[in-house]
Amino acid sequence: MSAELTVPQLSAKHRPTLDQALSAIRSRAYWSPHPEHPKAYGESAPADGLAAFEALRGTRLELGQPGTDGWTGGEVSPYGPELGVEYPHADPEVLLPAMKAGIAAWRDAGPETRALVSIEILSRISARTHEFAHAVMHTSGQAFMMAFQAGGPHAQDRGLEAVAYAYEEQTRVPGQADWSKPQGKKDPLELGKTFTAVPRGIALVIGCNTFPTWNGYPGLFASLATGNAVLVKPHPRAVLPLALTVQVAREVLAEAGFDPNLVALAVERPGEGIAKTLALRPEIKLIDYTGSTEFGDWLEANARQAQVYTEKAGVNTVVLDSTDNYKGMLANLAFSLSLYSGQMCTTPQNLLIPREGIATDAGHKSYDEVVADLAASVGGLLGDDARANALLGALVNPDVRTRLEAAAALGEVALASREVTNPEFPDAVVRTPVMVKLDAAKGDPEAPYLSECFGPVSFAVAVDSTADALELLRRTVREKGAMTVGAYTTSADTERAVEEVCLEESAQLSLNLTGGVYVNQTSAFSDFHGSGGNPAANAALCDGAFVANRFRVVEVRRQA
Amino acid sequence: MSAELTVPQLSAKHRPTLDQALSAIRSRAYWSPHPEHPKAYGESAPADGLAAFEALRGTRLELGQPGTDGWTGGEVSPYGPELGVEYPHADPEVLLPAMKAGIAAWRDAGPETRALVSIEILSRISARTHEFAHAVMHTSGQAFMMAFQAGGPHAQDRGLEAVAYAYEEQTRVPGQADWSKPQGKKDPLELGKTFTAVPRGIALVIGCNTFPTWNGYPGLFASLATGNAVLVKPHPRAVLPLALTVQVAREVLAEAGFDPNLVALAVERPGEGIAKTLALRPEIKLIDYTGSTEFGDWLEANARQAQVYTEKAGVNTVVLDSTDNYKGMLANLAFSLSLYSGQMCTTPQNLLIPREGIATDAGHKSYDEVVADLAASVGGLLGDDARANALLGALVNPDVRTRLEAAAALGEVALASREVTNPEFPDAVVRTPVMVKLDAAKGDPEAPYLSECFGPVSFAVAVDSTADALELLRRTVREKGAMTVGAYTTSADTERAVEEVCLEESAQLSLNLTGGVYVNQTSAFSDFHGSGGNPAANAALCDGAFVANRFRVVEVRRQA
Repeated sequence: MSAELTVPQLSAKHRPTLDQALSAIRSRAYWSPHPEHPKAYGESAPADGLAAFEALRGTRLELGQPGTDGWTGGEVSPYGPELGVEYPHADPEVLLPAMKAGIAAWRDAGPETRALVSIEILSRISARTHEFAHAVMHTSGQAFMMAFQAGGPHAQDRGLEAVAYAYEEQTRVPGQADWSKPQGKKDPLELGKTFTAVPRGIALVIGCNTFPTWNGYPGLFASLATGNAVLVKPHPRAVLPLALTVQVAREVLAEAGFDPNLVALAVERPGEGIAKTLALRPEIKLIDYTGSTEFGDWLEANARQAQVYTEKAGVNTVVLDSTDNYKGMLANLAFSLSLYSGQMCTTPQNLLIPREGIATDAGHKSYDEVVADLAASVGGLLGDDARANALLGALVNPDVRTRLEAAAALGEVALASREVTNPEFPDAVVRTPVMVKLDAAKGDPEAPYLSECFGPVSFAVAVDSTADALELLRRTVREKGAMTVGAYTTSADTERAVEEVCLEESAQLSLNLTGGVYVNQTSAFSDFHGSGGNPAANAALCDGAFVANRFRVVEVRRQA
Repeated sequence: MSAELTVPQLSAKHRPTLDQALSAIRSRAYWSPHPEHPKAYGESAPADGLAAFEALRGTRLELGQPGTDGWTGGEVSPYGPELGVEYPHADPEVLLPAMKAGIAAWRDAGPETRALVSIEILSRISARTHEFAHAVMHTSGQAFMMAFQAGGPHAQDRGLEAVAYAYEEQTRVPGQADWSKPQGKKDPLELGKTFTAVPRGIALVIGCNTFPTWNGYPGLFASLATGNAVLVKPHPRAVLPLALTVQVAREVLAEAGFDPNLVALAVERPGEGIAKTLALRPEIKLIDYTGSTEFGDWLEANARQAQVYTEKAGVNTVVLDSTDNYKGMLANLAFSLSLYSGQMCTTPQNLLIPREGIATDAGHKSYDEVVADLAASVGGLLGDDARANALLGALVNPDVRTRLEAAAALGEVALASREVTNPEFPDAVVRTPVMVKLDAAKGDPEAPYLSECFGPVSFAVAVDSTADALELLRRTVREKGAMTVGAYTTSADTERAVEEVCLEESAQLSLNLTGGVYVNQTSAFSDFHGSGGNPAANAALCDGAFVANRFRVVEVRRQA
């Protein structure tokens, strides 16, 4: 490899990080190499990042991709401004064959070099975290701090986690083995064997609007680190963060002596709907998708030539049985419901509360009291407009606003949504969450709490008992899927019962969170995001199953 | 667990075996705990095994399964005799719910106990290897020695390999982790986390006629060791070996304090076709299948509620370019073509030979000479009827005989099939292989060498050059799949070129085999069987991908 970036350089720089990541995914203790605090990036980083983002606006992002047959763009920030960035539009008949050209050399480089190059990509992205934060903020509508953390270090962590899993999976088989089988008094049978991880082909990453980097990086880096080329097809409203990612990846690949076309971007013209077309191309052997259940199901059913990894919709539930920290529970839930206006796939939607109320350290609380106290807690958290803006961000698209406005008609409103003004971005649509009271006793199969209502909408569902709550939880997870389940209880039996439901229905459970960890947040290297075992997602971020089938092992055996 | 078999007992007995298996799958050096030689099983084992097999004939195999609504059977040995064994016929409406009842306790037992119990099952099967050998012989038509080795120790090795992979995969995540995230000057955020491998549900193993145990054990033990219940649906002509396996598994599970219904048998009445019905049941979450491409494709397309692992048909190729051991090459290929009458999914079918001939240590050999010499080599190997019977076994079913007889009309016959009499079993249909000359130059898209012709049929295909051979190899693997590829060459460039084809098309390659290892044989813990990356199979035996998606990991996190 004649390259500016040599393997020894990359190894000196990144092998320790890889080793720490490998250790972290085994211990699942806290670890991250990507600082969460904006100040950690240097004195001038905030201004530089903003300036870099501003400099991108109104420009053409030139990637030098083969098959570029025009330019497209048109992102409008949920905060109002048009981004005005144009991206290459690709002719897949030209681009896809060009992407295959570099695969053999990338394969031959082996798992360690692929991991090191992947980490170099992540490390350059990390250095530009402030710039990426603005790009994520102005495509997802996340508030700046969240765009910074979730779109920056947390996304980079998830990418690195995928690299670590990919490396470990590929190196479970040795590159070479001598095999000698005794034959009694005769000479042993002897073979020399080599084992090579071979990629599937071209991977397609179909990005989402709300977390373009966080949800995009695991699939991108898992596929790249296992030797595949990766075509990134961003959500049309959230192109920039992934386009910058592709740009960095192409730069690093070229500097390391590989074909930059191993990573490419496919942006659609308005209404073109290229995800379906690309997903069925015979060259596409892997697909990672985050988005609607409808399209995820379509991919699973139709893109049969590919391994398909989907994160779709789910209905997340919190069971309220009892607590020894009523105030902490209310504060924790209020934050979870408010963060990014509930536009996380992990945000709780259904709060199941026994009709008779719950036991707490502040005395028995009736259903109505719990709902009122929670509403008050949310109201208090978001009472200050500055804090509300910092927590809520903006509604990502008009559909969320429509759902939010319709939710008030679904039942008695326990907490009304309120419009918040963003002084910096007056066109931003900022809304506090609505909470609606519903009753499970009616047993309506069309009840709103049985479908995902994505956005700042939660349902305080009255149930007959905790046992009924667990049955409703089980049914909801089994039929609708769930990315998260939460529960509050002081009873060991109830704890065991809710755990059993989650084990049987394959749902990730957070118990009695009353502090600074929230049910809707997971930490790479330690927490699994989704389980892959219920209808919300067919894969978890990140485990062996997420990477093991992105490559195959080819053995060559020779008479010794 | 109140049980006759305690975990400490099982651990003392089997943990060393598990550790050795774990080490073997990492080093991929030779290892097996299951002796290949019939004499290794004790003085009286041959007679005892035969007597045990004979004692089974004409009996009802009582398994004590719930939902038994009658009895069915009717296996006739390819060697002639009727087995006369009757098996329970199951009502899935009763059996499947009963199989689910024990899953939670099996899950809670954890990966190590499941591995130890699985190894105890294998170890009891191992002790009865002679009996199983007769059961395999009289259902598959394999000759005794092959039925003994492939159906006994080699199958047990593949089962143990799956157990080792399953154990390793489940224990990559710790059972418990403490997580502490620094918060600058504030107290760290702290959580206690537990991680539990949870099964998918009920697994279905659909057995094949030719290798009921060898092809059945990997899926069976992979699913069982990852916590699932397993329903075994044998091929109607090869029930006995898997029925005995289920019987042993149920005994061991009960003795170890688990529900014996975690493993059950489903045998169909003649023409009932229960595989399709069972495969679509919502309880069935995993399917392992070996058999025709048609049904394998059907399963992949239709059993969408399950993870489906298939081994289907392929067209195996050997490229003959040159050799420094002409005699060894001929002898090796002759054996490969003859073993079990070519009824292995790994038997070579297409021998690609340059029209101009090949360079050898015995001088240049023309295409006609190579074909004639290979035909003579097969003829010599099988010239003696006793040796022919010991190598060939019997044709497994009338379809193979029909194909064999039709093959002679496909081209010029280089080696005619001959009828061999089996003095012990005069009704056995024993045939030597046919070899037919074909020419690739005609470029006929319907050419016989472009489809699998399962049985003792090979095609000596004349090609323009080695380069053409490699193009035909590539096309065949890509379009039809291949379980094995072989090549003979003394040229480093050609070796590299055939390797590149195999890496790009994901096929397992054996180079220059001239001794006692054959292209159609793979060794557990070291060789992969299939690649999972071409149309012959969507999974390899055995790798991480084979086990990783048979369970999911559920995390429970609690405020510390």
